[in-house]
Amino acid sequence: MAFSTGGSSSSGNANERKLQRDIPTDSCVRLYLSPVPSVEGDEDEDVDDDHQSQAALSIVEQDDSGEEVELTSVTPGTATTVTIVDTNHGVSNPSKTQYDEEVTDVTYVVRKHYENFETIDWLKDLMRNRIRHRNLRAQRRASWRQRFIFWFDAWSGWICVLLVGLSAGLVAGFVDIGAKWMSHWRTGVCTPAFWLNREQCCWGSREVEFDHVHSELCEHWNTWSQIFDMNELSVSAWFFRYFMFIFWSVIYSGFIVCLVVGSAPYASGSGIPEIKTILSGFIMYGYLGKWTFFIKSIGMIFVTSAGLIVGKEGPFVHISCCCGNLFSKLFPKYGNNEARKREILSAAAATGVSVAFGAPIGGILFGLEEISYYFPYKTLWRTFFCCMIGALVVRTINPYGNGHEIQFPVEYNVPWATFEVVPFICLGILGGLWGTLFIKTNIRWLKYKKTSRIGQYPRAEVVILTLITAFICYPNLYLRLTMPELIRRLVGQCRVDNHMDLCDYEREKPTGTATSKLYSALAGPGIHRAIWQLFWALIVQITLVIFTIGTKIPSGLIVPSISIGAIAGRLIGIITEQIAYQNQHLAILRHECGVSNEHCVTPGLYAVVGACAFLGGVSRMTVSLVVIMSEVTGGLSYIVPLMVTALAAKWVGDAFGEGIYEENVKLSGYPYLENRESFRFTLKAGEAVRASRSDETVPLACIIQDGMTIAQIDRLLHRHPHSIYPVIISEDFPCIVGQVQRRDLLAVLKSRKTQSPQIQSKPLLNRKYSVVSMSNLLNKSGQPSSLGMRRASIALQASKILKLHKLVDRAPIIVTDQTPMEAVVDMFRKLGCRQIFVTKNGRLHGILTRKDIIRLMQEANISKKLEH
Amino acid sequence: MAFSTGGSSSSGNANERKLQRDIPTDSCVRLYLSPVPSVEGDEDEDVDDDHQSQAALSIVEQDDSGEEVELTSVTPGTATTVTIVDTNHGVSNPSKTQYDEEVTDVTYVVRKHYENFETIDWLKDLMRNRIRHRNLRAQRRASWRQRFIFWFDAWSGWICVLLVGLSAGLVAGFVDIGAKWMSHWRTGVCTPAFWLNREQCCWGSREVEFDHVHSELCEHWNTWSQIFDMNELSVSAWFFRYFMFIFWSVIYSGFIVCLVVGSAPYASGSGIPEIKTILSGFIMYGYLGKWTFFIKSIGMIFVTSAGLIVGKEGPFVHISCCCGNLFSKLFPKYGNNEARKREILSAAAATGVSVAFGAPIGGILFGLEEISYYFPYKTLWRTFFCCMIGALVVRTINPYGNGHEIQFPVEYNVPWATFEVVPFICLGILGGLWGTLFIKTNIRWLKYKKTSRIGQYPRAEVVILTLITAFICYPNLYLRLTMPELIRRLVGQCRVDNHMDLCDYEREKPTGTATSKLYSALAGPGIHRAIWQLFWALIVQITLVIFTIGTKIPSGLIVPSISIGAIAGRLIGIITEQIAYQNQHLAILRHECGVSNEHCVTPGLYAVVGACAFLGGVSRMTVSLVVIMSEVTGGLSYIVPLMVTALAAKWVGDAFGEGIYEENVKLSGYPYLENRESFRFTLKAGEAVRASRSDETVPLACIIQDGMTIAQIDRLLHRHPHSIYPVIISEDFPCIVGQVQRRDLLAVLKSRKTQSPQIQSKPLLNRKYSVVSMSNLLNKSGQPSSLGMRRASIALQASKILKLHKLVDRAPIIVTDQTPMEAVVDMFRKLGCRQIFVTKNGRLHGILTRKDIIRLMQEANISKKLEH
Repeated sequence: MAFSTGGSSSSGNANERKLQRDIPTDSCVRLYLSPVPSVEGDEDEDVDDDHQSQAALSIVEQDDSGEEVELTSVTPGTATTVTIVDTNHGVSNPSKTQYDEEVTDVTYVVRKHYENFETIDWLKDLMRNRIRHRNLRAQRRASWRQRFIFWFDAWSGWICVLLVGLSAGLVAGFVDIGAKWMSHWRTGVCTPAFWLNREQCCWGSREVEFDHVHSELCEHWNTWSQIFDMNELSVSAWFFRYFMFIFWSVIYSGFIVCLVVGSAPYASGSGIPEIKTILSGFIMYGYLGKWTFFIKSIGMIFVTSAGLIVGKEGPFVHISCCCGNLFSKLFPKYGNNEARKREILSAAAATGVSVAFGAPIGGILFGLEEISYYFPYKTLWRTFFCCMIGALVVRTINPYGNGHEIQFPVEYNVPWATFEVVPFICLGILGGLWGTLFIKTNIRWLKYKKTSRIGQYPRAEVVILTLITAFICYPNLYLRLTMPELIRRLVGQCRVDNHMDLCDYEREKPTGTATSKLYSALAGPGIHRAIWQLFWALIVQITLVIFTIGTKIPSGLIVPSISIGAIAGRLIGIITEQIAYQNQHLAILRHECGVSNEHCVTPGLYAVVGACAFLGGVSRMTVSLVVIMSEVTGGLSYIVPLMVTALAAKWVGDAFGEGIYEENVKLSGYPYLENRESFRFTLKAGEAVRASRSDETVPLACIIQDGMTIAQIDRLLHRHPHSIYPVIISEDFPCIVGQVQRRDLLAVLKSRKTQSPQIQSKPLLNRKYSVVSMSNLLNKSGQPSSLGMRRASIALQASKILKLHKLVDRAPIIVTDQTPMEAVVDMFRKLGCRQIFVTKNGRLHGILTRKDIIRLMQEANISKKLEH
Repeated sequence: MAFSTGGSSSSGNANERKLQRDIPTDSCVRLYLSPVPSVEGDEDEDVDDDHQSQAALSIVEQDDSGEEVELTSVTPGTATTVTIVDTNHGVSNPSKTQYDEEVTDVTYVVRKHYENFETIDWLKDLMRNRIRHRNLRAQRRASWRQRFIFWFDAWSGWICVLLVGLSAGLVAGFVDIGAKWMSHWRTGVCTPAFWLNREQCCWGSREVEFDHVHSELCEHWNTWSQIFDMNELSVSAWFFRYFMFIFWSVIYSGFIVCLVVGSAPYASGSGIPEIKTILSGFIMYGYLGKWTFFIKSIGMIFVTSAGLIVGKEGPFVHISCCCGNLFSKLFPKYGNNEARKREILSAAAATGVSVAFGAPIGGILFGLEEISYYFPYKTLWRTFFCCMIGALVVRTINPYGNGHEIQFPVEYNVPWATFEVVPFICLGILGGLWGTLFIKTNIRWLKYKKTSRIGQYPRAEVVILTLITAFICYPNLYLRLTMPELIRRLVGQCRVDNHMDLCDYEREKPTGTATSKLYSALAGPGIHRAIWQLFWALIVQITLVIFTIGTKIPSGLIVPSISIGAIAGRLIGIITEQIAYQNQHLAILRHECGVSNEHCVTPGLYAVVGACAFLGGVSRMTVSLVVIMSEVTGGLSYIVPLMVTALAAKWVGDAFGEGIYEENVKLSGYPYLENRESFRFTLKAGEAVRASRSDETVPLACIIQDGMTIAQIDRLLHRHPHSIYPVIISEDFPCIVGQVQRRDLLAVLKSRKTQSPQIQSKPLLNRKYSVVSMSNLLNKSGQPSSLGMRRASIALQASKILKLHKLVDRAPIIVTDQTPMEAVVDMFRKLGCRQIFVTKNGRLHGILTRKDIIRLMQEANISKKLEH
């Protein structure tokens, strides 16, 4: 080797001491030039020990890995089980131990449960799973039962997503059918069979007429005024129907808000921000529980039936994730491992969109782009399967009643002209602006509610909102429809036999040829009426949705956005159509639209594009948005216009702020580490450590590998309530050995204190003089090898040793202090670790936690804004 | 603090020494209990130095970060530029330096160019980009020019992908039109205008007839026998046409194989495996160069026109990436940074699929699922834009001639019956089996060619293959069509006025109603003829494709797979249709197909599903496959059947081996770190270090921070030809300070030796006694602070110091030896680092490189297979 082998090392001199004083006092780096203790060979030496502990415990699996292996016989829910086994029974022959220590070895700590509102450690959880799998694999040849367990384990992911897909599809079908029936119930009853909705009711009747907005009217369907035998055309009958409409709306919403506020507060809202946070590794017990699931499913039916401006597609993501959570409990692979569980939840979230819209590919992409955090290739693959099952179930239930999976079918296939890009971009810009307007006002309103008295009366708020909504909406025929019905009419194209207002063009009467429907024509009086009614509907929906989203009911934003966008799009579409019709002579139009002005401007297409724009403005989705819109409308020919619009909407929206989900995450203060933005830190990791600890003057809390007494550890735990402590070799030589969890330590120390003398044959370790060892060096012939250990043991000749080395996780993530913060943030994002140790020339310099990172990123954001 | 402050440290005893001998000798950890040198405060102290060097060099930007900042004035292509500046002019007042050393500080190394076949370091490249951006940002208020440069830089990504989209779209349109014309040229000429293909030629004629396979026949289009005035119906004319067909085919393929073998060998094959490898961070100069681009574009036209069983969709990915590479050179942000360039290349690869199929969403997903490695959110967003531009350009050029972007339009919208899932799954299984058959035989054939004499005559091989292909294909009407034409006929549905063989059902003659076409009927003689011809075509294509893929021509596999799948699907579709027709009385069929057997089995749909199955069997795509098939056919209603089939194909295929791209990567031996499979290592990082170094008995080559002479470093570089060397504090205390690149060191040492005396006012450093310093501790008042440094400088009182601390990258990635290998592999995959240092209790234990990981993974794979 090419090393210059210098002379023997001498101890420090004055110069060095001077330098050392420059070190910030808040680190545990005290630099005495002490001899370096050598700590070597820690894998193979505790074999004897392990055999004994296996005999004692019989379920210890491969615990020399420093991993907390699962203990399947422990009932789930117990936070931490500590089994302390004295392993030195019969080993205390004097030939083996030089010192007469009482060695107590903590062999086992079960750690598979996190606290509420904790962040999971992806790396450790995944590692735990791999060890579990390896053990199953190793044992699989032992017996047929083991073999079955192994195969069941291997297939459990597929079985689980199959169940999730089935259940999500069933719930979606149930909610769709229920919501349709209940919302029609507000206007009347099907007298021959009250369980049918208006559409189904009129299928059986001979004479079906359509009103101005293409709603069915038939003799089987009786409005409330007809049931109470009033004169259908009288003013009082109209007011009675008005009253019944409001009455049922209020009943529905009042019922569900009481249920939500009383029993399942987590069922309110769309749930997408929370799902995002949960998928990023946050623990929220109960958020995906069975009561949330049940009440949110029921709630979806009631709130959409009540006519509130809310959708049921966002909440479906939540409902689906509840299914995922509930079913994953059946499979230990997922139920007992929070990181693996998130794979199921990712698939479930995508399936939520898939079943809500009947858009399997859109669901996968939504999951990939918008929701998921950790998305390995295998998950994509399972998500695909799960979405397919969900879509198949929905197709079998057939809630839209058209035999296809398409919710808002676009039956036309008219090519679009290139000049139409201009109105499409305009729609995109409008969508972006609307998104910004909505997000700013909605977030401000939610913040205001938090501090003001309105927030204290959630039930009254919802009931009054329903009252206002029903009161405003009934007189307007378009608003009286449910939102999916409205959207379906707006995206559709006029047919020859269509007598609704939106199709009232002044064209020659149909002559029987099927193509005449396509020609442009001058707008008739019906169109003018429709324009004004739609404009009013637009204003009403925009205003109401701001106040409705964020109340204590299950409320999604996707369908309201689509609805508002479709109205705006249809309006612009009609205007463009009329402009094009009246300027047929212009060269550009003549070239693109052909001689007969056939295939020129299709207002229905503008409604689709507008829906895409407005949804994009709010959610800032891109690819998934385009795919969802394509799948929902079944119009693959219009991908390019949709893309143009989505791009415009996102650009405009991003210029003014973030999307609604990000803003909601921030509003709720969840520890969500944004994995999209690239932050431009100028810091190094070492500086970040200093910056993040600037308010604290206490030194860094470290545990020394050997030689601390139980009392010292007690004191440390008491003074520094961190969740994790680094384990270092010695105070003089703060090289990182590993890390130890606070609650493991607490549990061990507590069990030490409380363990009854009956179980333990030996007397309790003396709290003050007993030495805690985090290293497993003592194993080799029971002899302490490291300096610190030896020193401590000399000082405490007669005392006892509590061996905790199995608690120590010896694979922490380490970076040097010179690592740029961007790289550190990357590690947090991509590896999903909870904390990173920062070293300086091999010595511990500080700790950076996920929360530090989030705070630093927020500060960087603020300073970036100030700079502008 | 709760530390037990023990007594003063004593030096080691016999026990410890014994333990230390257990350490493997191949590590540099020599454990003398030496005093720990303290190395502190290295960021803020070289400010003076920097000011001077800035004055001297005037372009040093923020070089205290330890990063190699770009030097824009250096001409690209120069591998390493070393600027050595003596910074102690006029600073050598005795009050500042205690020792009379000659300090030479290497301030600057430009490192933006990689060697060929090197793996890039993602972390460093991205960091370099961030520093560059930060500098631009800081300077942007200086002048209008700086402001413009900043904005241009910020928008350069969008401009670049815009250009890529435009060019890829143009090339795609050009190739499509050219290929169609040239392949029709083989059969005849359009006499009024020879530059028209047969379709375009017949547009202008009044009487158009169709032959058995629905090819146009019109008076303007003259076959070669007509041109040479032969009797069209004679046998000699047929043989003449046959000869001309073969003649032109051989001319085309002979021309292009000479061009490829002679000028651009990289233009052969599909290029997708190589693109995957390049995107994963491999450098292959010339692979994306302009000659490859040009010859591959031309080649696409010629090989598809020659009638070889190859597609042009895979190569389009390569062509697109060439565009990406060529345009990125215009933008320093991407051209000078290999990691950032891969963002453009990812977008370009997706655009390749987008323009080849007219499937923008499918392209994005293909990029995401199949090709890309590093895909940040922003790239998704740009990819979206790039694909959109590409699709728009293709639409404007309109190569498919139908006004839409759809290549193989499916005009029908018939719902599928649930019992059809069974044949769909059968097709999926067939697809998986075919994929396996193809991959195994093709890879074996390629391996055989490598060793046998056939591989030495690539030109003859291609010409003979074309001869055979043309000879076999001409007599079969289906094989005589180009593959896209064949596929279009197979996926289409029979219309009433369709007289081709595939539509020869024994149904009552059309009565004028448009719906009669949909009824099932008994197969007529034409169908029977078509079945046998298609079956023959299937066998021919399957056989030929195995030998064609992998020859020295641009050859894609996607369209052949689709073609074979469509034939198989259509065959199974016809069989299913006939079975369903003849068993109409069965309950399941009666229920699903309705009374009139309307809407029952659509053979065209089976062709689509078969195409999906066979493509899935070869490529193992899932989501992207379904989306591409949907977009290519325009049939969104059939997503669920496509999903079922893709799943079945992938499951069956995966049971037998990997996909074609993975197998090709392996065959070529590229250092591609698979980022999908999760390997089940049982190793820890420490063990892996030992395992990967088992063949070497030499010690680990380390550079000591201070005190090595130039001669020692020379010797080290000579003896250990690694690409990177760890820098440690001292031999006694091997804590990692950083890492230094071999070629940086080499360049510096070389320039030291060769630098002319004119430039350097001082005499050259003495090679033997000059000390190299990797630390920047000397900066503070020119006084060495660390122990090693001091020791060295005492020993070399009168000698000179070469300061290389700017070469040292002080942010290496470090893991402990106890880290499980799964976590290490995760870090390699997700962080994209090239090497990881393994420490043991803070001391350097070994190095794991990307190549070690790939080797370990392969070994793990082999042992897994043996285990089974």
